[in-house]
Amino acid sequence: MKVYSGLAGIPVVKSSISYIDGEKGILEYRGIPIQELVENSEFLEVAYLLVFGKLPTVNEYKKFVSDVKEHLQIDSSIISLLEKLPLNTHPMKVLQSVVPVFSAFEDAEDVLDEKHHYNALVRMLGHVPTVLAFWKRISNKEDVIPPDGSLSYGENFLYMMRGEKPSKEEGDIFDKCLILHAEHTINASTFTAIVVVSTLADFYSAVSSAVGSLSGRLHGGANERVFYMLSEIKNIEDIPSIIEEKLKKKERIMGFGHRIYKTYDPRAKILKDMLKKLSTKKENNLYRIAEIFEREALKRLGSKGIHPNIDFYSGILYNMLGIPVQFYTPVFAMARIAGWTAHCKEYLKENKLFRPTQIYDGGHNIHYIPAEKRK
Amino acid sequence: MKVYSGLAGIPVVKSSISYIDGEKGILEYRGIPIQELVENSEFLEVAYLLVFGKLPTVNEYKKFVSDVKEHLQIDSSIISLLEKLPLNTHPMKVLQSVVPVFSAFEDAEDVLDEKHHYNALVRMLGHVPTVLAFWKRISNKEDVIPPDGSLSYGENFLYMMRGEKPSKEEGDIFDKCLILHAEHTINASTFTAIVVVSTLADFYSAVSSAVGSLSGRLHGGANERVFYMLSEIKNIEDIPSIIEEKLKKKERIMGFGHRIYKTYDPRAKILKDMLKKLSTKKENNLYRIAEIFEREALKRLGSKGIHPNIDFYSGILYNMLGIPVQFYTPVFAMARIAGWTAHCKEYLKENKLFRPTQIYDGGHNIHYIPAEKRK
Repeated sequence: MKVYSGLAGIPVVKSSISYIDGEKGILEYRGIPIQELVENSEFLEVAYLLVFGKLPTVNEYKKFVSDVKEHLQIDSSIISLLEKLPLNTHPMKVLQSVVPVFSAFEDAEDVLDEKHHYNALVRMLGHVPTVLAFWKRISNKEDVIPPDGSLSYGENFLYMMRGEKPSKEEGDIFDKCLILHAEHTINASTFTAIVVVSTLADFYSAVSSAVGSLSGRLHGGANERVFYMLSEIKNIEDIPSIIEEKLKKKERIMGFGHRIYKTYDPRAKILKDMLKKLSTKKENNLYRIAEIFEREALKRLGSKGIHPNIDFYSGILYNMLGIPVQFYTPVFAMARIAGWTAHCKEYLKENKLFRPTQIYDGGHNIHYIPAEKRK
Repeated sequence: MKVYSGLAGIPVVKSSISYIDGEKGILEYRGIPIQELVENSEFLEVAYLLVFGKLPTVNEYKKFVSDVKEHLQIDSSIISLLEKLPLNTHPMKVLQSVVPVFSAFEDAEDVLDEKHHYNALVRMLGHVPTVLAFWKRISNKEDVIPPDGSLSYGENFLYMMRGEKPSKEEGDIFDKCLILHAEHTINASTFTAIVVVSTLADFYSAVSSAVGSLSGRLHGGANERVFYMLSEIKNIEDIPSIIEEKLKKKERIMGFGHRIYKTYDPRAKILKDMLKKLSTKKENNLYRIAEIFEREALKRLGSKGIHPNIDFYSGILYNMLGIPVQFYTPVFAMARIAGWTAHCKEYLKENKLFRPTQIYDGGHNIHYIPAEKRK
């Protein structure tokens, strides 16, 4: 018997939620190419599509958006919780901590009840932006900005976070960024969600655990590190030598390369185009640096199939939209609620409790030694 | 390619923490039979053994106990958090919610730093009993009872929970019960913990997620259901017909049978002996019912290799010790912190990010349809 280390390549589910062709640079949600969704849809519609497996009718969508927007309001007890948290609590920990508490407001407690799936989805999609924006402001000792349901989902988040209303273009770009992060097949956090739900724990427990998983630096958080890497560059002329140095030391270049994509990450391409558009209106030094960094890195890596990935651009975009760096991974989590919920719902259709095993390599029948005889 | 449904029988780790022989009814922690540990050791020593792989020397143990006891005190911000939680929040959700916040007090934030392993362990072993006992009292609108470090670990928990000091015997029995629940190889919650830690998320995120996993009714919570099943029995004479009825309907008899143990669960045997002793001093109707229930169930199931498991007795024991039924699974979690932490620490020695895969069974190249044309 051998250990299936990290379960690399082991299929744990049959799934029809999303599909990646890494050779051709294709990403589809429910069979629809990501480009079509970014062009025509919006995040809440994509969330509906991912979870319920079809695009909503006009009436279904009206109800869905209205239910999500109703949940932008959070109970005063949750606001009090946020006010009591130690000010240095990382926003990912805040999110992991607050989501299980949502269960106290849930009518449909049974995880096999489809009502629970719907309720948990609209509650999380509604509450999470508010929790994150409130935490940004509370932890900075600023007054919180109550949600404004007359704004779009993306606009409202930027408004609550920054305290000033974004332009329609900023809201749209942010919304598209959420679409790009909403789902990406099985990875550590999505896997965590389905392992947890397989015990018949509820969706709040599953999503909270997925947030915990995403908080690890091998999973979420790469866009944060891209931001720091680019921020440290003082002179544009230094970029080639900085890259050469990293390659010589065999350091990974943050935001480049992807386990699955062997060509340009389709999400990165979309982000890059949006950034280019935004940067014509908004001067941003980081973007200028990123452009040159990309060109220089591609000269050296492009032929090896190493291209910029989604994390290379998302941090810069968030920076341009006024989102603080600690919130880059939480915003990723906010979008991925859609994918996590979709996988939980799908998994429960033919639920099977996860119970892998171990290869024991310790001793047997060892005896207890009294304390004074131990070394 | 086939789906490894629930990963049944798939080894995901090499491990030297615990070993089960289900045919012979053997359970060992670090090679030491569970019976020897229950007889000679105590829970905190067993936690040390599980996590660090050896029994502590006199000085190591003195420091360890003192560090855990110091952490019985929780920061006032955590008490305030508990006071703000909706009163109907289930204690498992409270635990999942509070553990990530512990990270705000952690000096050694890097999960690869061995200091983090020690700190997180003593902090969780110290804080969790206090959080649970405080939550029991806050949610019942009772005054909290501050921890008393002069009591043993088990005694102090019962004291904080009940408000009156337990007898030494009660404290000892509870402590042994914690030993029995401290570890049990790979199962859904332990697996959740290592999946989360494999992303290099910290131990607080990993343990919080494991708590989420344990909260599912296919995993933890069986002892709660045994309690309800036995509580519903009004007349002892009805027991045989109640059992016959369940067998006829092919219902599972809660607290009987175990996936791994094909003989008497060694932990159940130990619990049963302790209960017998305790019941000579403390009249308990539930215990009387359980005794007869076991005898009648064994008559019908014993020959099929179906015996009482640990959950059959632990609920009754907790009931005799004055622990409310909603806290049975949380107390299980409190003990399992040892096992979860041990597995996280062991897994990081040769960490490999969990990245299983899926078999895609959806469509391709489907087009986006405008809202008004959808059905």
